[in-house]
Amino acid sequence: MLTMTNLLANLLSQTTPGYSLPGAFYTSDAVFNEDFDRVISRKWLMAGHIAQIPRAGDWFVFRVGGEQVLIVRENEAQVNAFYNVCRHRGSTLCQGERGHGKLLVCPYHAWSFGLDGALRSARLMPEDFRKEDNGLIPAHVRTLHGLIFVCLSEDEPEPFDATFAEFEPILDYHGFDNARVAHEGRYPTAANWKLVVENFLECYHCAPAHPEFCSMHPPEALLAVGAGPSSGPAEAVERYAPVLEAWKAQAEALGRPVYTVDDGPESSHLRALLQRTMREGFLTETPDGQPASRLMGKRVDWDYGRMHLAFSPFSHIVADNDFAMLFRFTPRSAMQTDVDITWLVDGRADEVDLERMTWGWHNTTLQDKQITEDNQDGIRSRHYRPGRYSTQERALITFQDWYLRHLADA
Amino acid sequence: MLTMTNLLANLLSQTTPGYSLPGAFYTSDAVFNEDFDRVISRKWLMAGHIAQIPRAGDWFVFRVGGEQVLIVRENEAQVNAFYNVCRHRGSTLCQGERGHGKLLVCPYHAWSFGLDGALRSARLMPEDFRKEDNGLIPAHVRTLHGLIFVCLSEDEPEPFDATFAEFEPILDYHGFDNARVAHEGRYPTAANWKLVVENFLECYHCAPAHPEFCSMHPPEALLAVGAGPSSGPAEAVERYAPVLEAWKAQAEALGRPVYTVDDGPESSHLRALLQRTMREGFLTETPDGQPASRLMGKRVDWDYGRMHLAFSPFSHIVADNDFAMLFRFTPRSAMQTDVDITWLVDGRADEVDLERMTWGWHNTTLQDKQITEDNQDGIRSRHYRPGRYSTQERALITFQDWYLRHLADA
Amino acid sequence: MLTMTNLLANLLSQTTPGYSLPGAFYTSDAVFNEDFDRVISRKWLMAGHIAQIPRAGDWFVFRVGGEQVLIVRENEAQVNAFYNVCRHRGSTLCQGERGHGKLLVCPYHAWSFGLDGALRSARLMPEDFRKEDNGLIPAHVRTLHGLIFVCLSEDEPEPFDATFAEFEPILDYHGFDNARVAHEGRYPTAANWKLVVENFLECYHCAPAHPEFCSMHPPEALLAVGAGPSSGPAEAVERYAPVLEAWKAQAEALGRPVYTVDDGPESSHLRALLQRTMREGFLTETPDGQPASRLMGKRVDWDYGRMHLAFSPFSHIVADNDFAMLFRFTPRSAMQTDVDITWLVDGRADEVDLERMTWGWHNTTLQDKQITEDNQDGIRSRHYRPGRYSTQERALITFQDWYLRHLADA
Repeated sequence: MLTMTNLLANLLSQTTPGYSLPGAFYTSDAVFNEDFDRVISRKWLMAGHIAQIPRAGDWFVFRVGGEQVLIVRENEAQVNAFYNVCRHRGSTLCQGERGHGKLLVCPYHAWSFGLDGALRSARLMPEDFRKEDNGLIPAHVRTLHGLIFVCLSEDEPEPFDATFAEFEPILDYHGFDNARVAHEGRYPTAANWKLVVENFLECYHCAPAHPEFCSMHPPEALLAVGAGPSSGPAEAVERYAPVLEAWKAQAEALGRPVYTVDDGPESSHLRALLQRTMREGFLTETPDGQPASRLMGKRVDWDYGRMHLAFSPFSHIVADNDFAMLFRFTPRSAMQTDVDITWLVDGRADEVDLERMTWGWHNTTLQDKQITEDNQDGIRSRHYRPGRYSTQERALITFQDWYLRHLADA
Repeated sequence: MLTMTNLLANLLSQTTPGYSLPGAFYTSDAVFNEDFDRVISRKWLMAGHIAQIPRAGDWFVFRVGGEQVLIVRENEAQVNAFYNVCRHRGSTLCQGERGHGKLLVCPYHAWSFGLDGALRSARLMPEDFRKEDNGLIPAHVRTLHGLIFVCLSEDEPEPFDATFAEFEPILDYHGFDNARVAHEGRYPTAANWKLVVENFLECYHCAPAHPEFCSMHPPEALLAVGAGPSSGPAEAVERYAPVLEAWKAQAEALGRPVYTVDDGPESSHLRALLQRTMREGFLTETPDGQPASRLMGKRVDWDYGRMHLAFSPFSHIVADNDFAMLFRFTPRSAMQTDVDITWLVDGRADEVDLERMTWGWHNTTLQDKQITEDNQDGIRSRHYRPGRYSTQERALITFQDWYLRHLADA
Repeated sequence: MLTMTNLLANLLSQTTPGYSLPGAFYTSDAVFNEDFDRVISRKWLMAGHIAQIPRAGDWFVFRVGGEQVLIVRENEAQVNAFYNVCRHRGSTLCQGERGHGKLLVCPYHAWSFGLDGALRSARLMPEDFRKEDNGLIPAHVRTLHGLIFVCLSEDEPEPFDATFAEFEPILDYHGFDNARVAHEGRYPTAANWKLVVENFLECYHCAPAHPEFCSMHPPEALLAVGAGPSSGPAEAVERYAPVLEAWKAQAEALGRPVYTVDDGPESSHLRALLQRTMREGFLTETPDGQPASRLMGKRVDWDYGRMHLAFSPFSHIVADNDFAMLFRFTPRSAMQTDVDITWLVDGRADEVDLERMTWGWHNTTLQDKQITEDNQDGIRSRHYRPGRYSTQERALITFQDWYLRHLADA
């Protein structure tokens, strides 16, 4: 451990505020292991939505690093999470990505576990074998307005309620409790998780890289707050403030709660929340700005707004008036990250135009995959040098401070 | 080497009798290297059968770990084994899996070796070059009733005759000297060799995983001795004993030698031999129990029996009255093992129903590949914990003791 | 670094003059890293020909080890080389293998660099940001009669002019300045770069492995000098000398400069130059010896000769009367080497028979790929032992001395 501490100390001493990180932070297996222990496994990660496991006995697998977490619907009220490893000889318990069963039965020797993780049957065991000591190993799990969160910490996790209560009014208004899944997209990305996150936390690349995305949004909004509450140049934020204020008054008149969350680097989860205007004439993020589904949640009319909410750098929501997208950025190894999007619509929606609904973020995420992988490739060179951030990449400085603090703390 | 000794000592201290091994035993490259040096390279491994190289000049390649062993038929009486590496610049000498030639000629610079490994010709060598110092590097090789064994030890190997003489009467009776190859199957398995062996040494998984296999055998036999002489619960063995005794009397009346070998963990090769009954009405392991070929060897009539013989954890035979299967479990790397089956029939057989003959073990081995690979995947999790063995996995405790003794000895 | 020094010292002590190198030189990642630092990155490597980037703004990528070098045509007179890494966040700057642009624009955030590497535009940067400190990182680059050379050294490279001036008359005569590209072939080879080089520096394997190649050349020439000026047995060289002298007189009468370069192991680049006869009746290296294109350069008539020129073990030219081939052997990792051939013809050629022109070396290089990969496979065995070189592999002893001197020096 001395060696690792030295490696980290040495790397930490090479960081410069306002510059991207030294290459080893994006390429090294040793750093990834530290990331896993000190950051990834200590945070609440959004795993999905209860609409993905509507019936008791439904389950899906959420892969984080080298781990498989089994998310199981026990009953109407209860969602459980277990490591997907049989307690007998260690076989992968549930095969594939999702399934359903009254019991979780290991295909190897048929040990059977209840939806609560308890070992129900194991044939021919020695007399002193205790079933009650052989239940599945649980992971921490919580739900919040239909959203499922897990934490892989082996210790007591950071407090869930205190961290996320502030988001409740907005989640309630947007109707996440009663949403249904319209579409799921997978964009596995051959890049370090921090490159994936950094890509999502700045809109400096929007103009060069995302024609579809830019066509739906006002340039002044993208510049000022395109990637969150304080992501753009200070002057641009100031310039955009009156527009935002005017929209806020209008939205609140329709009953929409409008408020901002903008965590600093000392926070536990680096949460963010921003609601802003769409391009003129655009009701939602579709090619022509016209709806792809019915209004979500408690809305009574179209408000020309759009929300970006970050539970943490790993877990984001973008919500339009008629649909919402859950973004999961899940580290798998030093240079591999799962990027998954779940499109949600109101539970009462019966007609959904999938093609127009997914057009914007499907294309944008394919573009992000490409540019992030090219970023990773370049950083592997001996001749990569940390570069200066622009004034539209301010949120990267915050993210980097937050991240480095976790590494330095431990 | 101190480091490795410490690693092993530390791992050995974490093992618990009656439980599966700690994860590193199944995943670590360092442990695999120790396995190779202390176990794999010290044992006699069944490489194949002389019917695979019937003519002088026939050869095949047997891959063990990172090594290629060339098995060459020199003449009627002699089978040789060499490392498949040219003595000139180190090229792979014989390309592909099998072939034939009067000489072994390197395709790179045409150095030519006799079937005895001696260097026959090398053009344009310096005057002081000595051909007699540049023959192929031999591996230890022996044959036993048509079966070919090699040992990769660089020292004197464990004594071959003393180890395997006890099997001679049964190999002679089954006619292995004069068998011919009916079919070969390859089932490369992405799992540590010990998981592959453990899968073969217990029948606790037969009922959940192997419908074809279970359809051919009496449940009481599978429970008691489904994976060898003392593999099942003690009571089940006792319950099955009278049935086995009755069958033994009947089989011996037909001239079949019936005896048991059941090595303990202190043995060199952990040999096993068991002969037992088939399901009522089944003459052999086919879908309907009816023959797929003529009686093998010295048999005069069908005896409704079936033999399992283990030369070591790496080398097994299952023999029915009309065909036999050679099983090779060959470690390649920490998480890759070659599983190969050679189906043999009597050398005089002219009509063989391949489809019915291979149905049972081809399907069973595909299933074993799947469950063993799923086992490996689960063990890679940080949350795998060694689990308790059932009373039908007794042979795993014996195997584990045998294996750990080799690691602790050195 | 002590450890690495010890490893190298230990390996160096195991080498024996006249024998191939111990296995680790061909398989170890640690040795490859030393090779990169002490040899590969210190030499001038032929990257290509200016005909591959004829217009200002044309570029191509040359990959060496884990690095991408961008070769850019700035204008008629100037070729530049840069590491293909954006100075902002480290993205790969130019995507793909070749392209064209007035500026080099990063697709991520649109930082734009001139063809001279200077940063031209970067939006929204902090006030104290200095464009002049953020140009692309240059690599050393030189051109010589149309051929482009780069050196990846971070220090002052070995002197280019002094090293290669001796080749100028022959490059001029062959017309390399005005050549055009007729064809390019890629033969990525799963072998250490030293195996690829060694394969090219001996013709001991020509008879067993290369039927097409041998059909075009006189056996006595292949034996004596098939892989360079002193590659064959001393007696064979002596025997062939009068033939070569007679041809030389005849060729010089046609205005061709004929001279030999034959560097020893103390040289910086181990250069070689040899011109020799073709098989009787063969004007060039085609199946029937008849032309595939017009005479190259300053030739006035067919001279039945053929040139092999080595700038270093990494960079070779083979030139016939009507076409020439550039060979790039570029190390990528311990067991992966890029082998690339560029076929050049005279810039004035309008009819080129590609199929007949590429027949000889396309097939020969496919064969070399196969035998070199088989060589690598064999060397991975624990039972590979360094083998004695034949009298037709003399150049390997020279190469090995040259290589080991670089490793021992540092």
